[in-house]
Amino acid sequence: MEHYPKFAKAVDARKKEFIERLREAVAIPSVSTEPARRKDVVRMVEWMRKQLEKLGTKCELYVAGKQTLHDGTTLDLPPILFGVLGEDKKKKTLLVYGHLDVQPAAKEDGWNTEPFELVEKDGKLFGRGSTDDKGPVVGWVNAIETLQKNNIEVPVNIKFCFEAMEESGSEGLEETLRARKDTFMKGVDFTCISDNYWLGKTKPCITYGLRGVCYYCMEISAAKQDLHSGCFGGTVYEPMADVVWMMNQLTNLDGHINIKGLNEMVAPVTEEERKLYEATDFDMEEYRKDIGAVKLSKKTKEDLLMGRWRNPTLSLHGIEGAFSGAGAKTVIPAKVIGKFSIRIVPNMHPDKVDKLVIEHLNELWKSRGSPNRFKAYSSHSGNYWLSDFKHPHYQCGARAMKTVYGVEPDYTREGGSIPITLTFEEVTGNNVLLLPVGAGDDMAHSQNEKINVSNYIEGTKVLGAYLLELGKM
Amino acid sequence: MEHYPKFAKAVDARKKEFIERLREAVAIPSVSTEPARRKDVVRMVEWMRKQLEKLGTKCELYVAGKQTLHDGTTLDLPPILFGVLGEDKKKKTLLVYGHLDVQPAAKEDGWNTEPFELVEKDGKLFGRGSTDDKGPVVGWVNAIETLQKNNIEVPVNIKFCFEAMEESGSEGLEETLRARKDTFMKGVDFTCISDNYWLGKTKPCITYGLRGVCYYCMEISAAKQDLHSGCFGGTVYEPMADVVWMMNQLTNLDGHINIKGLNEMVAPVTEEERKLYEATDFDMEEYRKDIGAVKLSKKTKEDLLMGRWRNPTLSLHGIEGAFSGAGAKTVIPAKVIGKFSIRIVPNMHPDKVDKLVIEHLNELWKSRGSPNRFKAYSSHSGNYWLSDFKHPHYQCGARAMKTVYGVEPDYTREGGSIPITLTFEEVTGNNVLLLPVGAGDDMAHSQNEKINVSNYIEGTKVLGAYLLELGKM
Repeated sequence: MEHYPKFAKAVDARKKEFIERLREAVAIPSVSTEPARRKDVVRMVEWMRKQLEKLGTKCELYVAGKQTLHDGTTLDLPPILFGVLGEDKKKKTLLVYGHLDVQPAAKEDGWNTEPFELVEKDGKLFGRGSTDDKGPVVGWVNAIETLQKNNIEVPVNIKFCFEAMEESGSEGLEETLRARKDTFMKGVDFTCISDNYWLGKTKPCITYGLRGVCYYCMEISAAKQDLHSGCFGGTVYEPMADVVWMMNQLTNLDGHINIKGLNEMVAPVTEEERKLYEATDFDMEEYRKDIGAVKLSKKTKEDLLMGRWRNPTLSLHGIEGAFSGAGAKTVIPAKVIGKFSIRIVPNMHPDKVDKLVIEHLNELWKSRGSPNRFKAYSSHSGNYWLSDFKHPHYQCGARAMKTVYGVEPDYTREGGSIPITLTFEEVTGNNVLLLPVGAGDDMAHSQNEKINVSNYIEGTKVLGAYLLELGKM
Repeated sequence: MEHYPKFAKAVDARKKEFIERLREAVAIPSVSTEPARRKDVVRMVEWMRKQLEKLGTKCELYVAGKQTLHDGTTLDLPPILFGVLGEDKKKKTLLVYGHLDVQPAAKEDGWNTEPFELVEKDGKLFGRGSTDDKGPVVGWVNAIETLQKNNIEVPVNIKFCFEAMEESGSEGLEETLRARKDTFMKGVDFTCISDNYWLGKTKPCITYGLRGVCYYCMEISAAKQDLHSGCFGGTVYEPMADVVWMMNQLTNLDGHINIKGLNEMVAPVTEEERKLYEATDFDMEEYRKDIGAVKLSKKTKEDLLMGRWRNPTLSLHGIEGAFSGAGAKTVIPAKVIGKFSIRIVPNMHPDKVDKLVIEHLNELWKSRGSPNRFKAYSSHSGNYWLSDFKHPHYQCGARAMKTVYGVEPDYTREGGSIPITLTFEEVTGNNVLLLPVGAGDDMAHSQNEKINVSNYIEGTKVLGAYLLELGKM
C-alpha cells in the first residue's frame, strides 16, 4: 500500500469540499416513493452522472419502463445510471452499486432540522440520505477523484450501477441486470455494495449475510364505506376488531412466531458461526440506550445478534384504512388492511414461506368466524443472502479497513434486506462484498438520519484503500 | 292549521330558490377541524348572519375565546351566531340550535363529485354538509321566510343559536350557554334541534334519546423513534404487538364488551320502551344492503334497534403512530396510540365509565407483562340524553310531521351523540326536541353525504308546520 498515506492525507485535506458535495446531494429530495418527487429523483441521477463524467466515466441513463401507481396511472421509472471507468484488459473489473433515492422525510415527522438540508452538529451530518445511501455513493466519487488528482493509478476497471428506486423495491433493476448479463454485466470480477451500516458506533465491520423479507396484507371489509360509530355501532361486525384479533395471533410477547412450520425451516447454528457472535464487539446496554427501550427482548449478546441476523422475526407495521391521525375520530373503518412482514433467513425460501403464511392466515380467519370479507396476500418478498466471509475478496475489504482504522473488522450479518445483492451474485457469478460506511446509530429510514463526519471521511479512505487492495488480487 | 296549505304551496313554488340557497351554503368549505379552513368557517357564519338579518333577526356574533392547537399555537374560535326574532311577551319562545361547520371532505377520499359543490342527481343533493347540518339550518330560513312572505304570523318568538365548532366538540359553546343562562337563554320555553336523521328512508321520526360517548387512548412506547424492522426486528418488544393484544381483549366477535361492571350499569328495558321498538318501521335487510354488510350483528329488528340506541357498544377506531398509508413500509412504530370509544346509555355515568375502563386497561396491561411504557387515558366524554316522548312539545312535532307526511312519526333514539342537547335542557330547564330532517341513508360524516330533495323541501314544511303548532301550546 505504498500509495495509501499520500491518498489518506489528500482525503483529509479535502474534507470541507467533500462535505459540500454531500450537501448538494442531500439537498435534492429524491424520494422515490412519492410520485410528486419523481422530477427530483431524476435530477439526482443527472447530478450523479455529472460527478461520474468528471472522473472520466462513460455514462448511460437507462429508463427501464413505467411504474404503475396505486390509482392505475403510470409514471416513467427514474433512469438507472450505468457507468464504465477504465477498460484495461489487463485489469480486473469491479462493479460498484449504490442508490440515489431516499426514504420520505418531513420536518413534522419529528426531525430536529430540515431533512433535505445537510446540518453539521457535534461531528454528525444530519439529513435524509446522508448515510442511506448518498454518503457512501458520494464517497466513491471522493475516493476515485482523490486517487486521480494525486496521480495514483486506479488498479481496477470500475463499472457503476446507481439506481434510484431502491426505496421502492428497486423496480425495473433486476430485469435490467439480467437482460445485460452478457453485455454490461459481463466480465465483472467482484461487486461491492456500500449500503449498510456498522454494527456499533466504533468498530468497522464487513457484512456477509442479509435477511430477506416477506411482506403480507390482510384485507378485511364489512361495509361500502366508513361508518359513524354512533349511528352504526352495535349493528355491524367491525373489521378493526377482526384485524386486531388476527394480528394478535401472529406472535407471542417474546416475539415467537405462531405460524406452523415456519421455525422448522431455519438452518441450525454452526460452531464456526457461533464463534463469530461470541467474538463480535457489541455492547447490549449501549444498543438499548440508543433505541431508548426499557428492556430488550434478548438476554445475551449472542441471542441478540442471532435475533437480528439469523433468526426470523415478524413485525406488525400498521393498519391501512384505520384512523391514524391525531385527535379523536369516531369512525368504524369499513375496510382495513393489516400489514406485517417476516424477515427470512437461511433456509426459508420465500415461496414456501408465502404458502405457509397465507394458508395459516386463511385458517385463522376461518376460526375467527366473522362474516366479513377477507383476503390475505403477499405484497412482495425478497430472499435472504449469505456469502463466504473467508473469500479473498472479503480479505481485500478487511485489509482496507485495517489500514484505515487499525483494527480487524468484525464479520457481521444484517437484519435488513438488500435484495439486489442476490441478483448481482447470480448475474455476475462472482463474489459480492458489503462494505459498510455508516455507523450503527445512523437511523436510516428514521427521523434525524445522519452520518458521522468521521465515518464519511474515513469511509472515503476505506473505499480508496479497498480499490488499491483489489489491484493486488 | 288554517295557514298550512297556503304555506306548503308557497314552499313548493320556491323549491329551486331553496336549492340555490343550500348550494351557496355547501360551497363554503366550513371545516372546523382544519385550522387552514377557519376563515371559511367564519365566512359561513357571516353568510348565515345575513340570512337571519333579512328575516328581521337581531344578530350577535360572539367569539368564545381561542382554540389551542396540537402544536401549541392558538387560533380564534369561530363566532357563535346568536339571534333574536320577535320579542312579543304574549308569545312563547322557541330556541333553534344548529351548526354551520362540517366534517372534512376531499374528492380523493372516495367522493363521486366535488364535496363542496352541491350536485343534484336522482332526487338527491350531494355535498358536504347537505344534511349535516346545512340543509336543516337553511330549512329554518326557508320556512320562516315563506311564512313572512305569505303574511302568516310566526306565532312564537324565535331565538337562534348557530355554532360553527360542532364537528370539533362544540368548543366554547357550553360555557357560553351557561354564562348566558340569565340573559339570552332566559325565557326559552322549548328548544328544537334538527341535527339528526330519520331512522330509515321513508318514514319520519322524532328523537327522544341519544347515546353518549367516552373516548379512550392507550399509549404504548418502546423506543425514541421508529425503527427499521430489518435492523431492529428481533431485539425489541414491539408496541404494535402490545396494542393489538390490548385492543383484542376489549370485545368479543359478537360485540360484547369485556370490561367488568360496565354492562351492569345499563338500565333494564321497560315494557313501554319495548313496544316502541316493536312498532318502529325498520327494514333490516334494507339497512344491511345500504351498509353493504355481509351480515348484521343482530338477528331481530328489536335487538338491532336496541344495539344502536340503548345498549353500549365499543368501537376500535385506529392506531396513531402505526403505518397507515398505502404500500409497504417496513417500520417498527416506536410509539402507538390505540384509540377506541364506548357509546354510553342510561344509566352509565361518564365518570364511572371512565374509572372502570381506565382501571380495566391498567389491569390488562399488567397481565400483558410487556416492559414497554404504557399510559391509558380518557380523551373526552359526553353524557347520554333521554327525554319524555309523551311531552306536549313532542306532540307539536309529531302533529307537524303528520300534517306534512300524512303518517304518525316513529319515536326513535339515536346511537350518536349531540352533547349540547343536554346543555340546552339544563340551562333552559325546559324540554328539548330533536326534529330530524334528513333520511337514514344520508351518510353524514362519510363520503358522498347527501340530502334528498324531498327531505329538504318537505322538511322545510315540517319546520313551518311545527312553528304553527307551537302557537297553539
